[in-house]
Amino acid sequence: MDVTARIERALHGALAEGSTPGCPPGLAAAVQHAVFPGGARIRPRLCIAVAHACGDDSPALTDAAAAAIELLHCASLVHDDLPCFDDAAERRGRPSVQKAFGERLAVLAGDALIVMAFQTLAAAGMQAPNRLPALLATLARGVGMPHGIAAGQAWECEPRVDLHDYQRAKTGALFSAATMAGAHAAGAVAAPWHALGAWLGEAYQVADDIRDVIADPRALGKPTGRDAALGRPSAAAQLGLGGAARSFQRLIGHALASIPPCPRAAHFRALVLAESERLVPQAVCGELIAA
Amino acid sequence: MDVTARIERALHGALAEGSTPGCPPGLAAAVQHAVFPGGARIRPRLCIAVAHACGDDSPALTDAAAAAIELLHCASLVHDDLPCFDDAAERRGRPSVQKAFGERLAVLAGDALIVMAFQTLAAAGMQAPNRLPALLATLARGVGMPHGIAAGQAWECEPRVDLHDYQRAKTGALFSAATMAGAHAAGAVAAPWHALGAWLGEAYQVADDIRDVIADPRALGKPTGRDAALGRPSAAAQLGLGGAARSFQRLIGHALASIPPCPRAAHFRALVLAESERLVPQAVCGELIAA
Repeated sequence: MDVTARIERALHGALAEGSTPGCPPGLAAAVQHAVFPGGARIRPRLCIAVAHACGDDSPALTDAAAAAIELLHCASLVHDDLPCFDDAAERRGRPSVQKAFGERLAVLAGDALIVMAFQTLAAAGMQAPNRLPALLATLARGVGMPHGIAAGQAWECEPRVDLHDYQRAKTGALFSAATMAGAHAAGAVAAPWHALGAWLGEAYQVADDIRDVIADPRALGKPTGRDAALGRPSAAAQLGLGGAARSFQRLIGHALASIPPCPRAAHFRALVLAESERLVPQAVCGELIAA
Repeated sequence: MDVTARIERALHGALAEGSTPGCPPGLAAAVQHAVFPGGARIRPRLCIAVAHACGDDSPALTDAAAAAIELLHCASLVHDDLPCFDDAAERRGRPSVQKAFGERLAVLAGDALIVMAFQTLAAAGMQAPNRLPALLATLARGVGMPHGIAAGQAWECEPRVDLHDYQRAKTGALFSAATMAGAHAAGAVAAPWHALGAWLGEAYQVADDIRDVIADPRALGKPTGRDAALGRPSAAAQLGLGGAARSFQRLIGHALASIPPCPRAAHFRALVLAESERLVPQAVCGELIAA
């Protein structure tokens, strides 16, 4: 089964567990809307790629870890779009959850998705309980305090922010959780995979900042210009577009250099380069730096 | 060590993990405010009492389970108080988290508390990984979809609600998770402990509905009259105060009858009766029924 099919099947399975007839229909629909159709699913893709490089001897656990990571990511998007944060009306080219279902169901859908992520892991963990504590701890670190997504978003509420701390928490933490979870799920040592996720995550956040300034909102599927409008920490604002493009290229370079020696190193190289090109094409980077 | 000290120590330990210097100070303070000083800590108390009845052979895991349950409860209170739900300015006699720290940090503190609950379990689960999957699944069921707290709150967004479904999800689910988690943490069979938690939780919700109408808000530490103002499902509104008092007494009777045969049955009887008296004194019940 190809990776896309694995991820979608795992996510459908996770949602089916919770959306039984006894569930309030509005909540079930809001959660469904938050997860399907998805975006690039880059985090679960990364998780499965690392698990594969490490032998993937427990594919059900890998799938659960991948699904859990995507559910946590979707939860963060739903809460990010709330009126008190970005007040975004669109996400992935459709109405955001708060726009389609109201603010209350958006809060609850985010909460339910966080819980569902851990529930999905718990269910799959029955077969390999020894791998569960480290997997859980890794995922929780990616989204909680002091350095996960919630902390990253909370830096937006502070008068002074270090851009690197902010980006590392808001995006890098879940990316490194994704690579490390892939290793844990396969029963491998996870530490060597931390850096790849962290660099890629930081690159992803810088790309997001660049795209918020230069992209066509229709192509992006969400409004642009939000960082400036909301006074949010942004690489584009802090370094200029050229500086941000240079930073993006440097981070991708670090990501490539941090791929651990393994038989599938070439595959990871190709994956990182393809992702880099999808986020901010080399040609665009060149133009921004030259401008 | 007495139970109160065990619970507070476990909660302090859980928060200390996340509140290291790298954490955004606003988020750390909001989470601290949400958990300390606490309320009656009835759910963790129940969890520890059941673990004790089942031998409590892994007290660190019991403490983690008790702390996790209280963290999940605190998270639900923080999100419940948000402007889009109860818009409560007070909680436990002090400003609510949203009032003291703003709406954004209240959303994030709730998210971080949910994550912290699972993180706390994961850390303690390293020593008894075989008990972890069932513990996790039990807690997740208490707060997620289709029948946990998030679902209970989501019933408030539906045009039609069955009062029993609503109460069972909004309060009963975490109470039965508390009793069952106590059994799981001690390596015992959890099913016999489900009913005690469920009945007690439902009784607790009915008591809350009654107190929302009759209590002195200063004594209660939070505003009263919110159910009617917000058009929320309420036993007092649906059955009248006398009917609600009768329902409360019936539920406490069911809770007493559902205590599994065990050497500590008398202790549980005393605990349920003391809790019942604290919630709605017998004398008050009598007056409400006679009126």
